[in-house]
Amino acid sequence: MKTIKVVGMSLLASSLLFGAGSLAEKAKSVGLKAIPADKAALMKLTDPDKTVTPARVELGKKLYFEPRLSKSGIISCNTCHNLGLGGVDGIPAARGHMWRANPHHLNSPTVYNAVFFDRQFWDGRSPNLEDQAQGPMQAAPEMAAAPSLVEARVNSIPAYVDAFKKAYGKDVKVDFVTITKTIGIFERTLVTPSRFDDYLNGKENALSKEEKEGLATFIDKGCTACHTGIALGGSMKPFPTVGKFKYANVGDFKGDKNGLVKTPTLRNITETAPYFHNGTVWNLAEAVKIMGETQLGMKISDEDAKKIVTFFGALKGRKPEIIYPQFPASTAKTPKPEFN
Amino acid sequence: MKTIKVVGMSLLASSLLFGAGSLAEKAKSVGLKAIPADKAALMKLTDPDKTVTPARVELGKKLYFEPRLSKSGIISCNTCHNLGLGGVDGIPAARGHMWRANPHHLNSPTVYNAVFFDRQFWDGRSPNLEDQAQGPMQAAPEMAAAPSLVEARVNSIPAYVDAFKKAYGKDVKVDFVTITKTIGIFERTLVTPSRFDDYLNGKENALSKEEKEGLATFIDKGCTACHTGIALGGSMKPFPTVGKFKYANVGDFKGDKNGLVKTPTLRNITETAPYFHNGTVWNLAEAVKIMGETQLGMKISDEDAKKIVTFFGALKGRKPEIIYPQFPASTAKTPKPEFN
Repeated sequence: MKTIKVVGMSLLASSLLFGAGSLAEKAKSVGLKAIPADKAALMKLTDPDKTVTPARVELGKKLYFEPRLSKSGIISCNTCHNLGLGGVDGIPAARGHMWRANPHHLNSPTVYNAVFFDRQFWDGRSPNLEDQAQGPMQAAPEMAAAPSLVEARVNSIPAYVDAFKKAYGKDVKVDFVTITKTIGIFERTLVTPSRFDDYLNGKENALSKEEKEGLATFIDKGCTACHTGIALGGSMKPFPTVGKFKYANVGDFKGDKNGLVKTPTLRNITETAPYFHNGTVWNLAEAVKIMGETQLGMKISDEDAKKIVTFFGALKGRKPEIIYPQFPASTAKTPKPEFN
Repeated sequence: MKTIKVVGMSLLASSLLFGAGSLAEKAKSVGLKAIPADKAALMKLTDPDKTVTPARVELGKKLYFEPRLSKSGIISCNTCHNLGLGGVDGIPAARGHMWRANPHHLNSPTVYNAVFFDRQFWDGRSPNLEDQAQGPMQAAPEMAAAPSLVEARVNSIPAYVDAFKKAYGKDVKVDFVTITKTIGIFERTLVTPSRFDDYLNGKENALSKEEKEGLATFIDKGCTACHTGIALGGSMKPFPTVGKFKYANVGDFKGDKNGLVKTPTLRNITETAPYFHNGTVWNLAEAVKIMGETQLGMKISDEDAKKIVTFFGALKGRKPEIIYPQFPASTAKTPKPEFN
């Protein structure tokens, strides 16, 4: 009897907060948005410049998994943004060429739904996916490949050059910008609709009672001040930081000009531990409590944190089916792998 | 006119060697065998103990791509035996945990068609794929994971335990042997029928004129002394070594008790440079000539080497379509990644 009463009170609390049946409306009123179920509406959001074509997506997928775009020939985009692991590597700080860790101890953010972010990278220094893809390929502790090396590798393989011609026309210049742009175009398709979207799109039963209660708590605590929009994050928008997250023991990352890091997406968050830009926290409920304290200046109880995490489970999305690519063989002209 | 005459002479030579129309028969007489086109016949070869089931193959595929089976959490079987790169990594000596190179400078052999090998590993020390899979997972310069760590990682993830129950029954013990066995079972399905098989199976036009001439030259030179059977290799069978391949500058690998290394398969060989157990030669025609000299005691001309390489193109097989797996999320109990 006691248990039933407690549950009843919790539901009552939600109802009081938002009025019966209006939780979805309340969610929308604080800026939460569904991934559109309608394909045309979705494409309008993910492909505003109409650069996405099947040939480019197929080629971009191949390049995304292509280890020969790294200096060593054994690291691909998928190494750190593993499409089977929620789009991340599951380790605190990214590891790349020569086993180097990210010098700022930065955690690899997910590539899934990154198309919905306002800006790319933790400090938001890149405006879009196409631009972002240029970074890790060159970075010494990641793929460590100079643009000239990437271009030489790709251009040495006739099947790749043909694929670029098919994707962009016969006069295409297969240069570093076009190669990385094509990866970005593939990434525009990495969208994962979830039960949360089904709910916002009108399927009342898509969320369980407990998940709805978690959503209500999530809104009530004010988490949507930052975790909002389609990505439930992805913005550099400054907000009243109450506490201050401690960087001291995790490298020297300074964030953007305001000392802020980008709000990470909460989509697929149950799959993308460890958490925060520095990958220091493995437990999701603990991460919720830390954010409450440092960003919102409030103590979130264990019970409320648990409720919010229950809601997060509904953000686990349906991943696009990826057929693992077959890469064309290297030729005599293909620059050899380098390990230092 | 001259060109036409030369081609005519070459074809004449082949015809004289084996009699018109009997090249396929001759190939079979020296031990070359097709991958059976009949599925039941193929399964009899690849699954003699009837261990292969769809549930095990699906689970084995997931484990094959699963980086959390490595100590660091970022290296999978597919890192060195990349199913998009002919089943190899395309680098001279395998690189693994802590950026270590294989201490004996051994090149990663292809996993494709490895089910047809008599023995596994370059020195043939392992009898089958299930046993082989235990090696790289533990080896310090590869995945570097102790069996207890692999078991703890897998058992900490309920979806994996459920998948093992589905694959083997509810009383299954999810131990290191069962985990690696399941990967071996998946590998039994990695068979790549080629135009060469179509030809041996009766499709006379599956090979071009030039490829047939290359096959005739391949047989004529005696390459099938070692490169025979379904795998065109894969055996430790001692043979009269005329020359001696020099290991001096490539580590201390000693081979088996006879000082021999396993004959690598020639299937998909155009995709698996660099060549030899030490990965020292990138050019396939050059590799052919070196083998002629060191193993057969003969000088193979540039022209004949080119013909043989043309034949090798027909050994490029049709790869099984692999849907990239979605891995279940880690839990609080999952042992963390380790980088040293």
